[in-house]
Amino acid sequence: MARGTAQAAVALGGGHGLFATLSALRRLHDDLTIDDLTAVVTVADNGGSSGRLRGEFGVLPPGDLRMALAALCGDDEWGRTWAEVLQHRFAGHGEMQGHVTGNLLIVSLWELMGDHVRALDWVGRLLGAHGRVLPMATTPMDISARVRGADPADPDAITVVRGQVEVATTDGQIESVALVPEDPEACAEAVEAIRAAEWVVLGPGSWFSSVIPHLMVPGLRRALAETDGRLIVVLNLEAQAGETTGFGPADHLAVLFEHAPDLSVHAVLVDSSAVAGERDRLEKVVADRGARLVVADIAVPGEPRHDPDRLAAAFGRIVDEG
Amino acid sequence: MARGTAQAAVALGGGHGLFATLSALRRLHDDLTIDDLTAVVTVADNGGSSGRLRGEFGVLPPGDLRMALAALCGDDEWGRTWAEVLQHRFAGHGEMQGHVTGNLLIVSLWELMGDHVRALDWVGRLLGAHGRVLPMATTPMDISARVRGADPADPDAITVVRGQVEVATTDGQIESVALVPEDPEACAEAVEAIRAAEWVVLGPGSWFSSVIPHLMVPGLRRALAETDGRLIVVLNLEAQAGETTGFGPADHLAVLFEHAPDLSVHAVLVDSSAVAGERDRLEKVVADRGARLVVADIAVPGEPRHDPDRLAAAFGRIVDEG
Repeated sequence: MARGTAQAAVALGGGHGLFATLSALRRLHDDLTIDDLTAVVTVADNGGSSGRLRGEFGVLPPGDLRMALAALCGDDEWGRTWAEVLQHRFAGHGEMQGHVTGNLLIVSLWELMGDHVRALDWVGRLLGAHGRVLPMATTPMDISARVRGADPADPDAITVVRGQVEVATTDGQIESVALVPEDPEACAEAVEAIRAAEWVVLGPGSWFSSVIPHLMVPGLRRALAETDGRLIVVLNLEAQAGETTGFGPADHLAVLFEHAPDLSVHAVLVDSSAVAGERDRLEKVVADRGARLVVADIAVPGEPRHDPDRLAAAFGRIVDEG
Repeated sequence: MARGTAQAAVALGGGHGLFATLSALRRLHDDLTIDDLTAVVTVADNGGSSGRLRGEFGVLPPGDLRMALAALCGDDEWGRTWAEVLQHRFAGHGEMQGHVTGNLLIVSLWELMGDHVRALDWVGRLLGAHGRVLPMATTPMDISARVRGADPADPDAITVVRGQVEVATTDGQIESVALVPEDPEACAEAVEAIRAAEWVVLGPGSWFSSVIPHLMVPGLRRALAETDGRLIVVLNLEAQAGETTGFGPADHLAVLFEHAPDLSVHAVLVDSSAVAGERDRLEKVVADRGARLVVADIAVPGEPRHDPDRLAAAFGRIVDEG
């Protein structure tokens, strides 16, 4: 479909990975390539300010939702200022230390309105966000992982680790992840957005704790399998110590497919520096899935993070080529 | 001056009293009687969420500023929603208990911008506030009071009580109040607003801890004495246990004048229920000052609080008559 014909896009993920994707898609939104942008965000975090708020109020962890809202703030002074306020983390040594302003704002609206989606829409309106932010589910949950060799004395033993923080920092090798409870109800608006989208972007991000969890929510997995929208998987730039130690791009893709055998993928986008040495293997995994491998310079040169402008350019090319 | 000719107004005070005045003046702002509305707010609070934030971050106590911003929010769904969010107080039993969302938002902007006035202007813009909120000074301070008979064993002894909470709840009789430090620098924008205003409103509110402190800031007292703006003093509906036990309207006015001998007053506005029994004495105190006594029904019937609509009507009449 030609660029200039506006289309709907949904990005799924969490944390800094989703922040990068949304920052890129917002650029396509601002130049009218994308006219409808929705973020669907993991809600399994149990650490930091989010974990404390979840513990104190029994609400969804707000942190990844807040980061997604910040990514969708405009590039003008208004947007930049409120993105900075949302992301402000209190310093000091007291009870507020480590809490993040946007998290507190979101939790206030949840408490007042008793409706996760409505409250997030209000925060988005307040900030003039260039898109909508939705939780993947409207009940908090945990991630658990089957981990091999967490105990160095018994490198073949499998243990179960529970909690996003615990999974993300395990010393063992993650074999698979699951959600607790196992089949949370997907956020209805997220399901709708995925079914209506022309483009769906999954990743990058903490692979087992931010990306794959979306595929573990039955309603989301069904919507992803059934949507006419074309799925773009964005691979990480490097392995993440703990969670994906030793993983190359093909390994990332393989475990993703293991968790969602029925997922149809349009394109796999990977940074050129990340494929060095295993391009053949990656091409095979991608081709076996009937997908297209897109290798592009999408990282900030010399840094292990995606560059929103380069990522936007790569998305633009994929969208142009349809 | 005829109604319809827009004029600038400044309201000085703190807490619920200032909230009532601003809610009333906002109505005059919305009907274009007042085209420029500024709140000047006490910053001596040391209790509750404000006291905790002041202790943790060394900032101004934000609570009374936040209430003033909430009062200036519009009457439409947007304004009502954000006023409610600003005023939301966290429940629970954890570290967030008792903190107020608007306080945290204001402190974040102070920390980010390092400029009290600029940050409050940004919050006002975010909310679409119908006026400007300024602190009376840009350094935190304490109130101290000379109190007679705080110790029941020695009813004539004078002791000094320090802290807004301590002053507001003293068991003794307050003789006078002072600020610590004694001569804080007034907020420059507040001084400017008072000098430029056609109308200045002082009170109602906690008399010794929210109203009189404005007269103790040398720069504000000077601006109040020198402005061409006409000063309206709004008296409380009743004595406040602790702070003004046993005080009638004339007593309120007398202690106010003791703290600011050079203050020129245009009108003293008092609820009709509050003057019963001492109207003659009150009229004398007001007339001695060259001011005009305006008695009107400005309370919510049967409740000890001012009614914004009635207060707006009374202000409107005073402004009409010039």
